[in-house]
Amino acid sequence: MSRPVIQFWYEFASTYSYPAAIRVEDMAVQRGVELRWRPFLLGPIFAEAGWTTSPFNLLPVKGAYMWRDLERICAAAGLPFSRPDPFPQNGLKAARIATALAPEQVPSFSRAVYLAQFGERRQIDDETLLATLIARAGADAQEMLALSAGDEVKTRLRESVAEAKALGIFGAPSLTCADGELFWGNDRLEQAMDHALATHAATEGA
Amino acid sequence: MSRPVIQFWYEFASTYSYPAAIRVEDMAVQRGVELRWRPFLLGPIFAEAGWTTSPFNLLPVKGAYMWRDLERICAAAGLPFSRPDPFPQNGLKAARIATALAPEQVPSFSRAVYLAQFGERRQIDDETLLATLIARAGADAQEMLALSAGDEVKTRLRESVAEAKALGIFGAPSLTCADGELFWGNDRLEQAMDHALATHAATEGA
Repeated sequence: MSRPVIQFWYEFASTYSYPAAIRVEDMAVQRGVELRWRPFLLGPIFAEAGWTTSPFNLLPVKGAYMWRDLERICAAAGLPFSRPDPFPQNGLKAARIATALAPEQVPSFSRAVYLAQFGERRQIDDETLLATLIARAGADAQEMLALSAGDEVKTRLRESVAEAKALGIFGAPSLTCADGELFWGNDRLEQAMDHALATHAATEGA
Repeated sequence: MSRPVIQFWYEFASTYSYPAAIRVEDMAVQRGVELRWRPFLLGPIFAEAGWTTSPFNLLPVKGAYMWRDLERICAAAGLPFSRPDPFPQNGLKAARIATALAPEQVPSFSRAVYLAQFGERRQIDDETLLATLIARAGADAQEMLALSAGDEVKTRLRESVAEAKALGIFGAPSLTCADGELFWGNDRLEQAMDHALATHAATEGA
């Protein structure tokens, strides 16, 4: 029996991507779902909506709620939480690195970036920090920093953003199933896996 | 022992208020929470953000997702679903009626408006429909339509909108607890009740 595949789309500066990135891998393993980690950028997608920053900054009353909601989610999950400053952080370098890493190194690197940002209030565009996190994920830091700044990786990340847009993605985290079904938000991880498993079982049974 | 109180804030044109309004009363009864139904209007709050219509119309890619997400939620809950046309509907008259009704008539009237709108694709500013739903809720239709168009009810509804804004409410459904804690969305009903019960128990125990 093959396993259903879910693409997990995340933006490093995205607040709700933090608790989602921490829990999604364990959930996928437990449920028998194959997870593909898909770093992408929300900036180009927000820019098309005419936004120059996070919508949480553009609408402060919604932003205030989001920070409180995220704090509650982290407390319930036992996750450290410290509001990043500035927000949003610049996640471009981290996204390029996650694009350049070997697939098996991406989950631990990505989780470490989120924990540094939202748990330790580190600046995630800091190359010294990124080098440490690359090394911890099992890759060569200098090699990976060089590779991630190259044209091939930049192009692949742009292609990921284009693919996200084509899938109807407008926020992060988002999950997409093989049939194109889209689920948005840390609140939808369970439903996305339910859907992937149900549709996959129907296909296998056919 | 007294019961914790939750204010349930809803806007009749709001899509996610539909499944929330259908399930919130049963949940409150089961959990031992006293629910106060608080009809309000999002229009004046959206207008302050510079929006002239629903943000789901302003950002079509997010709107497309919302409709699919709502369809899935309704299917999972066994609720009828038919996308209203036009969207958003004009919920002003329904909100004034819900403001004018006796508290015990508000839940059944409000659920009926949502079911007519999202289940039967009715126009919720239609006075013939509203008269039928008022009568079903146990009030006199003509008396209530006249009362709801009067200055006293209009003022009370305006005060509700002002109170919602003061509580930091920016969308619907929203739930607020006695300590001011705010929860937004059909996804947060359970957490709101958890919070109300936990904080109330702490107060009673003190």
